[in-house]
Amino acid sequence: MKFKLYYWPSIQGRGEFVRLALEDAGASYVDVARLSQKEGGGVSALMAMLAKHPSPVRPFAPPILEMGRLVIAQTANILQVIAPRLGLVPADEASRIGAHQLQLTIADFVAEVHDTHHPIGASLYYEDQKPEARARSKLFRAQRIPKYLGYFESVLAANKKSKGRHAVGRASSYVDLSLFQVMEGLAYAFPKALKRVAKDVPLLVALRDRVAARPGIAAYLTSPRRIPFNEDGIFRRYPELDV
Amino acid sequence: MKFKLYYWPSIQGRGEFVRLALEDAGASYVDVARLSQKEGGGVSALMAMLAKHPSPVRPFAPPILEMGRLVIAQTANILQVIAPRLGLVPADEASRIGAHQLQLTIADFVAEVHDTHHPIGASLYYEDQKPEARARSKLFRAQRIPKYLGYFESVLAANKKSKGRHAVGRASSYVDLSLFQVMEGLAYAFPKALKRVAKDVPLLVALRDRVAARPGIAAYLTSPRRIPFNEDGIFRRYPELDV
Repeated sequence: MKFKLYYWPSIQGRGEFVRLALEDAGASYVDVARLSQKEGGGVSALMAMLAKHPSPVRPFAPPILEMGRLVIAQTANILQVIAPRLGLVPADEASRIGAHQLQLTIADFVAEVHDTHHPIGASLYYEDQKPEARARSKLFRAQRIPKYLGYFESVLAANKKSKGRHAVGRASSYVDLSLFQVMEGLAYAFPKALKRVAKDVPLLVALRDRVAARPGIAAYLTSPRRIPFNEDGIFRRYPELDV
Repeated sequence: MKFKLYYWPSIQGRGEFVRLALEDAGASYVDVARLSQKEGGGVSALMAMLAKHPSPVRPFAPPILEMGRLVIAQTANILQVIAPRLGLVPADEASRIGAHQLQLTIADFVAEVHDTHHPIGASLYYEDQKPEARARSKLFRAQRIPKYLGYFESVLAANKKSKGRHAVGRASSYVDLSLFQVMEGLAYAFPKALKRVAKDVPLLVALRDRVAARPGIAAYLTSPRRIPFNEDGIFRRYPELDV
């Protein structure tokens, strides 16, 4: 099965959660908008996909994954569909429901991360909402980071099957990969805040390190396919938001 | 199958999307936190559930649905699991993926609605973030309501199978019920903004009216089980945010 991913070519963003799953599994995929226009890529290919009404339902926003005759949007939805095919989720229904539940909670957290620099509106520049971004980030650092990371830590601790090494079941799943990305993103955007909470979430820190060492992920992270974090993405390093 | 729903007893909130599905299907369910403490209900019962580590994974937040031995959180996740059992989604995989994709986009919209009155932080009172709420709501009314409703309208229009009468497939699904709730919520919180856009989304308006007339929903809406919209929920009527 060859996958086609449609996502913004210059940021990690929400597409990165899908890229990590594909890379970890060694799946064959094309990151369409990163190809040249000559090769049928570029942002115009992404825009064309967004304007279409493919099956089953037109996407509202990227990431979008094309898989045979299916075109799937919404990050957690994509992961839920591809994970069984990639061997990245346990087979039983309860574990799959639990994995998806966790991924949706990660999605909620990611939306909150985005709004730390865009609390008034995504259509305005960050520079036009800096005081509000500072106010929102202050609460985000003091309350939301500890609350979410504490929650994920408790989920790891409660997963006796894996002795706290995996979010769901006995083996690595897409949720582990997404938790890695959350930790990496926070280390980039909120290094001081993360440092303050790190001692309280040792299982998450250890999980991040283990995921980084997985063969597919380690190869990916040092390849040109891994776009560096930058100030167009969701996790942005604005020192004034991490005091 | 008897369902137990755990959600805040005094608001519609995100739990309402689950209530609507259960009510439309005539399912047997208990809205646990709305029972008295004597009956094992109240907010304390909800809090006890949030503190537990049930199977498969501890919930981060309500709504939570208990179904036999499964305890499921995240609104869209709950709906995805119960819909096949309630006859509220087509049987084929593509339609289910599409329905879930739409529900996740509705969830994104609902999160944006919440942040119109809480742009800086959910832990602060609305009164402590009123100027920011006005700024965010202005963009929300001008850009986000037309964008989301225009998108949902285009999905209805593209669903030739139902001649624009349903979001997915040939019959009513949980997505139709959720779109009804979105339209009802906007009519309560942003009546002026909705009026401006209504003429551009005739299929959505017609869908809302048809859902309201479905027997299970019509009975529910006039029952004491339907909590009125209020200023503790997600859709809040603050006239200064709808000018």
